[in-house]
Amino acid sequence: MIGAAKALILAGLSIRRICAPRKRMRTKLNYVWKLRLNLLADSRRMASNKVLTASSINPNVLTMQYAVRGPIVIRANELEKELKKGDHKTFSTVIKANIGDAHAMGQRPITFIRQVLACVSDPSLMSTDGPFSFPADVVDHAKAILDDCGGGSTGAYSNSTGVDIIRKHVAEYISKRDGGIPCDPEDVILSGGASESIRNVLKLFINRDSSKKTGIMIPIPQYPLYSASIEEFNLGQVGYFLDEEAGWGLNEAELERSLKEAKYDVKAIVIINPGNPTGQVLSRENIEVIVRFAQKHNLFVLADEVYQDNVYAAGSAFHSFKKVASEMGAPFNKIELASFHSVSKGYMGECGMRGGYVEFLNLDPEVYVQFKKMISAKLCSTVLGQVVIDTVVNPPKPGEPSYDLWKRERDDVLASLKQRATLVREAYGAIEGITCNPVQGAMYAFPRIHLPPKAVQKAESLGQKPDFYYAMRLLEEAGICIVPGSGFGQRDGTYHFRTTILPQPALFKEMLDRFSKFHKKFMAEFK
Amino acid sequence: MIGAAKALILAGLSIRRICAPRKRMRTKLNYVWKLRLNLLADSRRMASNKVLTASSINPNVLTMQYAVRGPIVIRANELEKELKKGDHKTFSTVIKANIGDAHAMGQRPITFIRQVLACVSDPSLMSTDGPFSFPADVVDHAKAILDDCGGGSTGAYSNSTGVDIIRKHVAEYISKRDGGIPCDPEDVILSGGASESIRNVLKLFINRDSSKKTGIMIPIPQYPLYSASIEEFNLGQVGYFLDEEAGWGLNEAELERSLKEAKYDVKAIVIINPGNPTGQVLSRENIEVIVRFAQKHNLFVLADEVYQDNVYAAGSAFHSFKKVASEMGAPFNKIELASFHSVSKGYMGECGMRGGYVEFLNLDPEVYVQFKKMISAKLCSTVLGQVVIDTVVNPPKPGEPSYDLWKRERDDVLASLKQRATLVREAYGAIEGITCNPVQGAMYAFPRIHLPPKAVQKAESLGQKPDFYYAMRLLEEAGICIVPGSGFGQRDGTYHFRTTILPQPALFKEMLDRFSKFHKKFMAEFK
Repeated sequence: MIGAAKALILAGLSIRRICAPRKRMRTKLNYVWKLRLNLLADSRRMASNKVLTASSINPNVLTMQYAVRGPIVIRANELEKELKKGDHKTFSTVIKANIGDAHAMGQRPITFIRQVLACVSDPSLMSTDGPFSFPADVVDHAKAILDDCGGGSTGAYSNSTGVDIIRKHVAEYISKRDGGIPCDPEDVILSGGASESIRNVLKLFINRDSSKKTGIMIPIPQYPLYSASIEEFNLGQVGYFLDEEAGWGLNEAELERSLKEAKYDVKAIVIINPGNPTGQVLSRENIEVIVRFAQKHNLFVLADEVYQDNVYAAGSAFHSFKKVASEMGAPFNKIELASFHSVSKGYMGECGMRGGYVEFLNLDPEVYVQFKKMISAKLCSTVLGQVVIDTVVNPPKPGEPSYDLWKRERDDVLASLKQRATLVREAYGAIEGITCNPVQGAMYAFPRIHLPPKAVQKAESLGQKPDFYYAMRLLEEAGICIVPGSGFGQRDGTYHFRTTILPQPALFKEMLDRFSKFHKKFMAEFK
Repeated sequence: MIGAAKALILAGLSIRRICAPRKRMRTKLNYVWKLRLNLLADSRRMASNKVLTASSINPNVLTMQYAVRGPIVIRANELEKELKKGDHKTFSTVIKANIGDAHAMGQRPITFIRQVLACVSDPSLMSTDGPFSFPADVVDHAKAILDDCGGGSTGAYSNSTGVDIIRKHVAEYISKRDGGIPCDPEDVILSGGASESIRNVLKLFINRDSSKKTGIMIPIPQYPLYSASIEEFNLGQVGYFLDEEAGWGLNEAELERSLKEAKYDVKAIVIINPGNPTGQVLSRENIEVIVRFAQKHNLFVLADEVYQDNVYAAGSAFHSFKKVASEMGAPFNKIELASFHSVSKGYMGECGMRGGYVEFLNLDPEVYVQFKKMISAKLCSTVLGQVVIDTVVNPPKPGEPSYDLWKRERDDVLASLKQRATLVREAYGAIEGITCNPVQGAMYAFPRIHLPPKAVQKAESLGQKPDFYYAMRLLEEAGICIVPGSGFGQRDGTYHFRTTILPQPALFKEMLDRFSKFHKKFMAEFK
């Protein structure tokens, strides 16, 4: 029995040795101590008998990271609970600027969206002889959707690709957005948020040739859904740097360098426009550069366009990759493209609803069949999430009863976001030791912190990344939760953080005040 | 250029040769014809230049199959469109008995569930001075949930594990169901349907050791989510046969045989109870056999218990794996277990809402941390789907204003399902050439068709599986859509199909009439 336990321990050790992320902690324990730990601690021995342990599970799950909900957010949640219990802190609330979650930060839902949702949830509310009456266009919207649901109920599964009439409305929206370029509803597939579609498309690139992973080019800094999914799917991450000095734009030379130096068989490139975490809006010229690059090297383009409604800067405009590639003509209009959109961002911010879609351009028809087969095993995405997509792509039209209120609510949200986008840049730009590019679009600023060498040394002495150390101190001392730049990627030796612009104006001002005080104190400490 | 095209074609050919599911079709084309096809057809040549082709995509996506939404269902959808256009058929409607989709088959939603959904969608409906008023308990439910949502909105992301108060209600439900055995809300994780949780748990078993895949034991017949996900994740399917002669029960000898003969490193066993597609309800003794087997061989148990409310047979009762394992005491109460539940089945049938959960028992704490990290990259499941879970695990209580209606609606649905469960067995049992076990639970019958040898030969001459041939003829000639047994697995030389018991009584009777006529004609043809 002891022999068996010993064998198990030794096996465990050798497996642990190859688990890089755990290495530092593990090497602190010496071998003898480990043996004692394993042989003597009964609970520990029980754990090692389990089928699933940190040593036996999917190694890609072990190594993947998703910073937006990482250790700093976990600590922020703990702090909130401590405050609720009445613990004394120097702050009374934790301000969560870590995640693009508009409603959580006080933004109100758009009335039209929620009225349609209520009607498709409880169709008796649409009864004209009942005590309550919704605007006629709300009822019309809800009825049109229910007519296309199995049994007239949002409780029926939809096709795996989504409810047909909603796909049709999405196609009409895209065509209108792109100045009349046609869009076939068959090329549109609805999903539970854009994340699900993005992950489904990335899955197509998995290969089983362990000698050469498929490489996916992603911007650095990037939104960590990409790095996490690439790691989970055992794909190869190939980063190309955005140019901080050029307002986080990108240039051809850097794309070529990245591809040339890639260790993997690169087949796809991800672009996030408007940028997350970087807030830039790509110019049409910039997009043309990428399209030419993709065409030249035969790369599949994943265009993350979930912030297409969030453009604030004067002179900036959203150009879809599909429109630009289509207008460039052959051979550029033949590139394979997947464009993603979501109901979580824009003016609606309906994150919890989980609505999104992918539009394919030039996808091989056989691959499309395979894609549909793959998603069918999960049956369908939430039908109510699909309904929210419908309300976003097919909003009230001028003259309809809901139009004026809808327009006012939408314009108010976008105007307020625009104001905060300007404010955040001005505020951070005025702080010594911080530089910040303009927030042209999306919902984030990604300021650079010029950390003093002593702060960097202090962090390293604690085994922490310097920007993580800074972010954790900011949370503990000022109650502000942001995400360190290392979670998104950044050039070596530079340090950043991502903050959303979502706290409502009064809270936003308080956040900037708290931040400024903390930062001065921190910088003085390490001068 | 021609040289390059030729090389591409040859590469394509060699890759195609190893793609088993496409082999038969491919070998019908001879090599010369293929060359001509590829060299001459311009569109074809363009397609082969694409990044993603059927030859280059993830090979596991190519080989996975999900019969419940396979070719027969695609043809059924086409037939429906043809009927809509006015095409003449011998039937006027397609009866879809292929999928457990209650609302699509005419079942009405439970009023309480939909009223709570309407309130959390449009909280202004809860205003007491408004023109409309919902029952007080509906409003209380909705308010309690909204209080725990970010910003009081279902449009905010929830924690990746789900809204806390809903997890608490699930834990209370489980504990009550299991006669007071404690359940910690921390062990409950909400998801978009049970499918998502099942796939998330299976993902933990992926390894990167290509010399030995991790094996997962699944029942044969099984629900094809399992075979599809196992294939997609590059795991190894290890089937154990359910015993048709013993009412689809299972026995220890077959479990041992299956494990002994497995080509893979088996780490987990899936049980579906009540059974899908087989409709059996496991006795407590049967469950004890499985628990002892899992404990003996150190297997992780995945208990698919989504039909726990669907038990019809006199003398049958649902016993949860957790309860049985807990009551068996040490060492059996230490097995690692994941139990799944869903809002798609039961009396509510809210498939489109995508609500489900997993409860873990004895999961290694480090694995739990990894699991939470893994799901965090997808942010959260639909909050409205989570709300439906809440209404299911925390329904109105006696004395509350919604109780009587809720109880009547629930009882009516379950009584009607019970009636159809009996009827389906009697009807199929009376048809010559069909045998059918009792439908003790769930929503399906899985009758065996004793096909004449000539019918088998005919099917094989067309390159089709015999039960597929039968099912396609049934669809084309009688307008009934069912799923052939080969999609679920069955013993060699036996043929079955799965039909739901969900069509409402009048349609159900029509289905049985149409079926009976078709079957007689078919059997006569191949006598």
